[in-house]
Amino acid sequence: MSGEFGLIARHFVWPAPGADLGVGDDAALLSVGAGMQLVVSTDLLVSGTHFLADTDAQRLGRKALAVNLSDMAAMGARPRWATLALALPAVDETWLSAFALGLRTLAQAQSTELVGGDTTRGPLTIGITILGEVPRGQALRRDRAQPGDDVWVSGTLGDAAVALAQLNGAHLPDAQLLDAAAFDQCRQRLEAPEPRVALGVALLGLANAAIDISDGFAADLGHILERSGVAARVAYDRLPLSPALAGLRFEPSVVQAIIAGGDDYELCFTAPRSARAQVEAAALAAGTPVTRCGEILAGVGLQLLDADGHTLPLARSGFDHFG
Amino acid sequence: MSGEFGLIARHFVWPAPGADLGVGDDAALLSVGAGMQLVVSTDLLVSGTHFLADTDAQRLGRKALAVNLSDMAAMGARPRWATLALALPAVDETWLSAFALGLRTLAQAQSTELVGGDTTRGPLTIGITILGEVPRGQALRRDRAQPGDDVWVSGTLGDAAVALAQLNGAHLPDAQLLDAAAFDQCRQRLEAPEPRVALGVALLGLANAAIDISDGFAADLGHILERSGVAARVAYDRLPLSPALAGLRFEPSVVQAIIAGGDDYELCFTAPRSARAQVEAAALAAGTPVTRCGEILAGVGLQLLDADGHTLPLARSGFDHFG
Repeated sequence: MSGEFGLIARHFVWPAPGADLGVGDDAALLSVGAGMQLVVSTDLLVSGTHFLADTDAQRLGRKALAVNLSDMAAMGARPRWATLALALPAVDETWLSAFALGLRTLAQAQSTELVGGDTTRGPLTIGITILGEVPRGQALRRDRAQPGDDVWVSGTLGDAAVALAQLNGAHLPDAQLLDAAAFDQCRQRLEAPEPRVALGVALLGLANAAIDISDGFAADLGHILERSGVAARVAYDRLPLSPALAGLRFEPSVVQAIIAGGDDYELCFTAPRSARAQVEAAALAAGTPVTRCGEILAGVGLQLLDADGHTLPLARSGFDHFG
Repeated sequence: MSGEFGLIARHFVWPAPGADLGVGDDAALLSVGAGMQLVVSTDLLVSGTHFLADTDAQRLGRKALAVNLSDMAAMGARPRWATLALALPAVDETWLSAFALGLRTLAQAQSTELVGGDTTRGPLTIGITILGEVPRGQALRRDRAQPGDDVWVSGTLGDAAVALAQLNGAHLPDAQLLDAAAFDQCRQRLEAPEPRVALGVALLGLANAAIDISDGFAADLGHILERSGVAARVAYDRLPLSPALAGLRFEPSVVQAIIAGGDDYELCFTAPRSARAQVEAAALAAGTPVTRCGEILAGVGLQLLDADGHTLPLARSGFDHFG
């Protein structure tokens, strides 16, 4: 085989025993379990907008799937299948091998099968649609936060945005904040985010609402508030930071990265106060730390308070490709 | 709302009563019927590769969905839902309104609901994933053609490829074949192909194998032969032509368009001889003409015969983006 068909066969066909029919026909055939809902999400990553053209191909393949798995995590869904649409300026077998390896390694680690796709010539663009399952009626939606709920965040915030700022450092006066070891830790978070799939599934029946933090903590929590018709008060000092950023919490560019940087791929979720111990046990079982940082209130809007109870400004409320 | 979120709300949110949860959360929630298999396909259309940058936006929106609906037709699936991933160089509200109108009009005509998506900045690129349903075990696959089957084609072949050649006429010595009325008919087939969804569903239980003709008749029938491990003999004179091309069957560029032009979005399918009357009745009920043009044989490869029984050469076997 040669050309497009050979390219798919060489790089993107591996066993998919969970599909009734995988790559190679007009469409894939899949069976959704009885009592389950299908969960579907799509992301498009464009060279120059979402990643630098010289990004390591293996990390790029991994990240393209990771951001979609993060959407499954935010619904509490188990990922099952994915399709890949790939536009390439030209066929570069070395690049493709590395890209496919990164994608496949994470896919197999998360029991996600590639069941279809499309490859074509064009500016480097990666479109992934991910399909998962959740028990009927139990998905973690954005619109179910309740006054009195705690606000929780998984992992740590701001690392990816600080790494990106330092990579773009020439343009930012205070971007050179990190020493080499700390920068490497942050860059790892930027290039190889860990989707919180196990945590999402563990929160079924416990959390009232959830979202993944891709646009920035304030913007994404804002989506929960808007869709649920509630307000929130969050203690800035309680937002979880990595060791790399722990001493930099009050640097202006780090403040910005923590509350509005995005690309964290952590979960922000709300759960009743009565479920605190259960949430902590679920997080322990999932191997993902979680931090309680605020509460849901009746009303509208997000209040971010410093240690003295003063309101911090939310100057820029998150990433918007057409803002 | 403004920017990305406003853009989605203004153009791409319309009622989706068949979804449990549609646009606006981390993912959509869908229920697949009992006894049904989920059918999933993805296509990526890139400006400059699949369409000209100045293509009418409404027709482009329609066609982007039509080519995906055609994949559902080729499986005998009823389309249910779609997701849209759209990269845009800039926000052009007039263009977006027209694009969304074209997409929505066809989606609603085919009972297909838009349940998710992603918009971002980048070179104009359209990624659609389509989800449908088929009764378990009944999908029209590529790998089930049997020796003795008839080979059938829906509608007519070559129109789109001849229109495209004429649009690119400056480069092709014999491209100016059509008068204005015939060109308009062919251009309509290029820009507004009619996915054969009703025919595909009507063929369930009758056809043994099916594919949609996107790469070219010879290449796509070739996929059925390869996957089924069979051969075929087809009479060139019996391939169905539109009135626009009927008098041009033996023009070299038209021969090429008919057998290898692609972009037809017709169905090529095989069915037992015993089902001839039922296939014709099903096509009549679906409102789509079908033509019997050959037979499946034991062996390997496709033989295309002229009226005297001589073998026609298959010089170029279809479109390949990386051939």
